[in-house]
Amino acid sequence: MSDKNYIIAPDPDDQRLSQAVSGIDQSGVAVETRVVAERPLTLYLNGQEIVTMMTIGDHPDLLAVGYLRNQGMLADDDVVTEIEHDEELEVVVVRTGRQTDFEEKLKKKVRTSGCAQGTMFGDIMSGFDTVELSNTATIKTSWLYELTKQINQTPSLYLAAGAIHGCVLCKRDEPLVYLEDVGRHNAVDKIAGWMWLNKVPAGDKIFYTTGRLTSEMVIKTVMMEVPILVSRSGFTAWGVELAKKAGLTLIGRARGKRFVALSGHERIVFDADLKAVDEEGPRHRRKGALPDAEVA
Amino acid sequence: MSDKNYIIAPDPDDQRLSQAVSGIDQSGVAVETRVVAERPLTLYLNGQEIVTMMTIGDHPDLLAVGYLRNQGMLADDDVVTEIEHDEELEVVVVRTGRQTDFEEKLKKKVRTSGCAQGTMFGDIMSGFDTVELSNTATIKTSWLYELTKQINQTPSLYLAAGAIHGCVLCKRDEPLVYLEDVGRHNAVDKIAGWMWLNKVPAGDKIFYTTGRLTSEMVIKTVMMEVPILVSRSGFTAWGVELAKKAGLTLIGRARGKRFVALSGHERIVFDADLKAVDEEGPRHRRKGALPDAEVA
Repeated sequence: MSDKNYIIAPDPDDQRLSQAVSGIDQSGVAVETRVVAERPLTLYLNGQEIVTMMTIGDHPDLLAVGYLRNQGMLADDDVVTEIEHDEELEVVVVRTGRQTDFEEKLKKKVRTSGCAQGTMFGDIMSGFDTVELSNTATIKTSWLYELTKQINQTPSLYLAAGAIHGCVLCKRDEPLVYLEDVGRHNAVDKIAGWMWLNKVPAGDKIFYTTGRLTSEMVIKTVMMEVPILVSRSGFTAWGVELAKKAGLTLIGRARGKRFVALSGHERIVFDADLKAVDEEGPRHRRKGALPDAEVA
Repeated sequence: MSDKNYIIAPDPDDQRLSQAVSGIDQSGVAVETRVVAERPLTLYLNGQEIVTMMTIGDHPDLLAVGYLRNQGMLADDDVVTEIEHDEELEVVVVRTGRQTDFEEKLKKKVRTSGCAQGTMFGDIMSGFDTVELSNTATIKTSWLYELTKQINQTPSLYLAAGAIHGCVLCKRDEPLVYLEDVGRHNAVDKIAGWMWLNKVPAGDKIFYTTGRLTSEMVIKTVMMEVPILVSRSGFTAWGVELAKKAGLTLIGRARGKRFVALSGHERIVFDADLKAVDEEGPRHRRKGALPDAEVA
């Protein structure tokens, strides 16, 4: 039940990631509460400025590399020679062996997909169509319940300050890497960065997110070649459509003993005794109690 | 308790906005459920392509104008001569009397803030600093409780399909315009579009959102000159800082009888008898039951 098995776990005690602020409550009484940090981080790839992200600020190296990887700016054979982070300047620079020039790509971002979801759609979909996800991967429902229970009980910024998303890379019934950020796209990018830098195989992994299963989240998971995506939140229609197209196992509204799978059911092994699975206690109820009522 | 007083209310029966999909539940039993639509909409201002947004697709006119307004691309004295929406091409074109050219601005978006939050930070902050919010506006706690009760009970896509954000423009204890979208930035832009097209004064309004009180949400509310922002979700530190700077009343974690105000307390009038206010029932509990545990 502890976080002793995590390779990376949240660090809610890191004073840079949240701060105490004073206010008043519903009775007009002064209260002090914690709120999460949100700060800009400007990413350079070699000499080129790529993007400024709003982030809590931990793991800038993973965020930088994961962002570049998920945007198709780091190829399989690219070698990262250096990652420099200047906390004061709020800058992270990723250097690669190969020369890079994404001037045209950056222009295309504005023209074809802009800022609506933090993605670069036009470009990415060509890669998406060629990914083949593992056809031997499975998820047992007993693993799923063990994972959500462990994740819910892990000390996190979410439990300390709220208003933050979490993404967790898991294997069987073990959560391995749990990363949080103000935007779910950042949390997933940090996981992608960790996987790429550590050459972690994806075919036997399960990806858990607190965020909604939108087209963006499905595309990123597929690009990372993880075959199973689980969320406690709900779905969008396009997310479901893309998951079916890629053969991704898509499990949403996973809370307590409930869940709904809308794609890739064949990977699910129903081994759990539902009578023995607890419903969520209020302490761990991140979202609405209704299976069909949540936003993330 | 009904939506009879809304000027615009959600239309959960609109078949374009959600669709039925088949899946299986935790027992392996086939289920049918509704999921919200998510489709691209490409915005042109006169001859120039501005952005492609991911949206549920209702009110493309309000979304288009609100986006342009909140990005500083429509000035106070601009006149919108035509808004053309082509549903099949997924395009909306806004035409203005004045010639516009945002080539440089669009470039700047990539360089200075990119896609992290769907905003155009560098540019917008110069406008932010000059806004003077109403110093006569107030919010009574009795209004706040009446508003959240009415909003929770209004039929919505959220209640029908989940995974969607809502923004509501209110006056005193009355919700006036309730708009939903997959991204909270779209929902707030639709409100901004409605206000601008209808020349609605902002000083006596209260803005309610289901989304988190991030820097982006605070900036947009201030740019719309609405003096009071309420959310059932939590805060980020930068959101709180910007609200204090602008003198915005910032009320978060508003659920049942609870809330926390972290800026602009002087506008709050504590007139409600807390003993008479209900806690939220599970049907309307959109987020975690803990005051300090939510994500949106």
